[in-house]
Amino acid sequence: MALHSVRKARGCWTFIRALHKGSRAAPTPQKDSKKRVFSGIQPTGIPHLGNYLGAIENWVRLQDEYDSVLYSIVDLHSITVPQDPAVLRQSILDMTATLLACGINPEKSILFQQSQVSEHTQLSWILSCMVRLPRLQHLHQWKVNAIYSPLGEGSTHVPVGEDQVQHMELVQDLAQGFNKKYGEFFPVPKSILTSMKKVKSLRDPSAKMSKSDPDKLATVGITDSPEEIVRKFRKAVTDFTSEVTYDPAGRPGVSNLVAVHAAVTGLPVQEVVRRSAGMDTARYKLAVADAVIEKFAPIKRELEKLKLDKDHLEKVLQAGSAKAEELACPVCQEVKKLVGFL
Amino acid sequence: MALHSVRKARGCWTFIRALHKGSRAAPTPQKDSKKRVFSGIQPTGIPHLGNYLGAIENWVRLQDEYDSVLYSIVDLHSITVPQDPAVLRQSILDMTATLLACGINPEKSILFQQSQVSEHTQLSWILSCMVRLPRLQHLHQWKVNAIYSPLGEGSTHVPVGEDQVQHMELVQDLAQGFNKKYGEFFPVPKSILTSMKKVKSLRDPSAKMSKSDPDKLATVGITDSPEEIVRKFRKAVTDFTSEVTYDPAGRPGVSNLVAVHAAVTGLPVQEVVRRSAGMDTARYKLAVADAVIEKFAPIKRELEKLKLDKDHLEKVLQAGSAKAEELACPVCQEVKKLVGFL
Repeated sequence: MALHSVRKARGCWTFIRALHKGSRAAPTPQKDSKKRVFSGIQPTGIPHLGNYLGAIENWVRLQDEYDSVLYSIVDLHSITVPQDPAVLRQSILDMTATLLACGINPEKSILFQQSQVSEHTQLSWILSCMVRLPRLQHLHQWKVNAIYSPLGEGSTHVPVGEDQVQHMELVQDLAQGFNKKYGEFFPVPKSILTSMKKVKSLRDPSAKMSKSDPDKLATVGITDSPEEIVRKFRKAVTDFTSEVTYDPAGRPGVSNLVAVHAAVTGLPVQEVVRRSAGMDTARYKLAVADAVIEKFAPIKRELEKLKLDKDHLEKVLQAGSAKAEELACPVCQEVKKLVGFL
Repeated sequence: MALHSVRKARGCWTFIRALHKGSRAAPTPQKDSKKRVFSGIQPTGIPHLGNYLGAIENWVRLQDEYDSVLYSIVDLHSITVPQDPAVLRQSILDMTATLLACGINPEKSILFQQSQVSEHTQLSWILSCMVRLPRLQHLHQWKVNAIYSPLGEGSTHVPVGEDQVQHMELVQDLAQGFNKKYGEFFPVPKSILTSMKKVKSLRDPSAKMSKSDPDKLATVGITDSPEEIVRKFRKAVTDFTSEVTYDPAGRPGVSNLVAVHAAVTGLPVQEVVRRSAGMDTARYKLAVADAVIEKFAPIKRELEKLKLDKDHLEKVLQAGSAKAEELACPVCQEVKKLVGFL
């Protein structure tokens, strides 16, 4: 059974649509093939260069490539480890501001706060009770919640990096397990395999750039001052060859710089290497730092402005969460019907 | 921080009240000491004599003893074991009809369906993430949900039998654990120790009467025909002494009959024994069967009438669930604020 129509329920919008390409009785057949993209990000405050190039830039692009796009600030997931309430609240608003500053446009995509859409915990509960797949048995409830998240709004596509393919297989198993038991209902989400750029630590090019790196020089924040950015790139670990080449296996340090450089300028790696001919790595580091500073300058200006308007950020989240709920509510009502609650 | 006032939130009623006896700034101080009773029952279809005497009759009485009383049909708990959706739906409605037929009055108590109050899964998620008490670590999420249930509507009292005292200690730990971390918020619910009558199997007086007993003669259903009730009591296991006495340890079979007899007639055990002087157990069994038939007759008539009106049952549940949500919504919003989501 696909989600053709859902009656008006308490606290729910009436909502008529068809999620499945296979559903023929849908009142709006032209929407059958509609794709819906879902992704989530933890509220970790102001993101760093790795977050930006690895996910956020990609999110901005997907807004123009798909009709229906949902981005969730997954605060419910964030509390599976201890959080200071005031810091968490600030981090949620900071992440909202950063996403907007980076180009997430609430007119093009639904930016929402996970905990404001009550259907997420309801579906998480039901799905974790209902679907007894051997592969999922060993997972904690919160992992099941993470896995099921794209299903809440009936999403069809999830952008993933190579290391998340296995995770997506679990999402697909969960959807298929439910459909097998209760009839075709959830779209089985497909991966959008994107070339998610993995930025390495500036101090250890064998490790990912990470917010929690104890070496403060390892990670470049979006809001770092130009001086900080220059200092961090100047101290970036490379090797004893002064030439700039791209060889991630043999020369991970300088190759990380080249990759960052290519990403922030939008040039191909080969072109970046060609243009740096004759530069030694010391001079090249400054060139990369300049390119990063230039890339982040407008984002940083916009972010500073947005951070001053807490009301605006809260309104954006509320409006986005209301839109997400509009999608999630009929899914949740239909699931409740399928399992026998309604 | 007690729950003094909660601003209007999306999908929430504005709601001003004080839960704690210790809260001094409350606008309605006369309500500070208000007690709120909570209890839940699984949707297991039509209850039996043991459910009736052990819980339901008690619930009916509590309606008149407390200002604010909530009874929940805990369908979310019921799906922690596999359920057929159609059977589950019917069982929810049957349990609703039975409770109404037994005397649960929606004007006096809030009778609601757990899954219709979304705050329950939200709070369950948050509390199971937040409260890391060693005593609770080993429990499954669904058990934490069961434990936290009375907290959702800020209940202060929970009727429990002797065997549930340990369970209540966990509820109290959960409330105290949250309060310790986030400031005084949840009332720490108190047990109402009631003399919950434990009806034994008619075929094995060492076991509790149970719906799932494979021996159909062991359990008397509320809707059993008079003939079935007579047959079951006639076959009740007693002993080789023909006299009627009350000695649960030495003569569990006949003592169970006496206890049932006393419970359904409302007479003290001693009086029941006195009145049966001269009867042998064979004749006494018929006397008890008659008393049970008489007790259930009006309930059965009312139940048959209610079962015909599915719409009415659904409306009762919807109205009750809306009232429960009215209580749970501000609790949930305040918890979200305390943990940093809002």
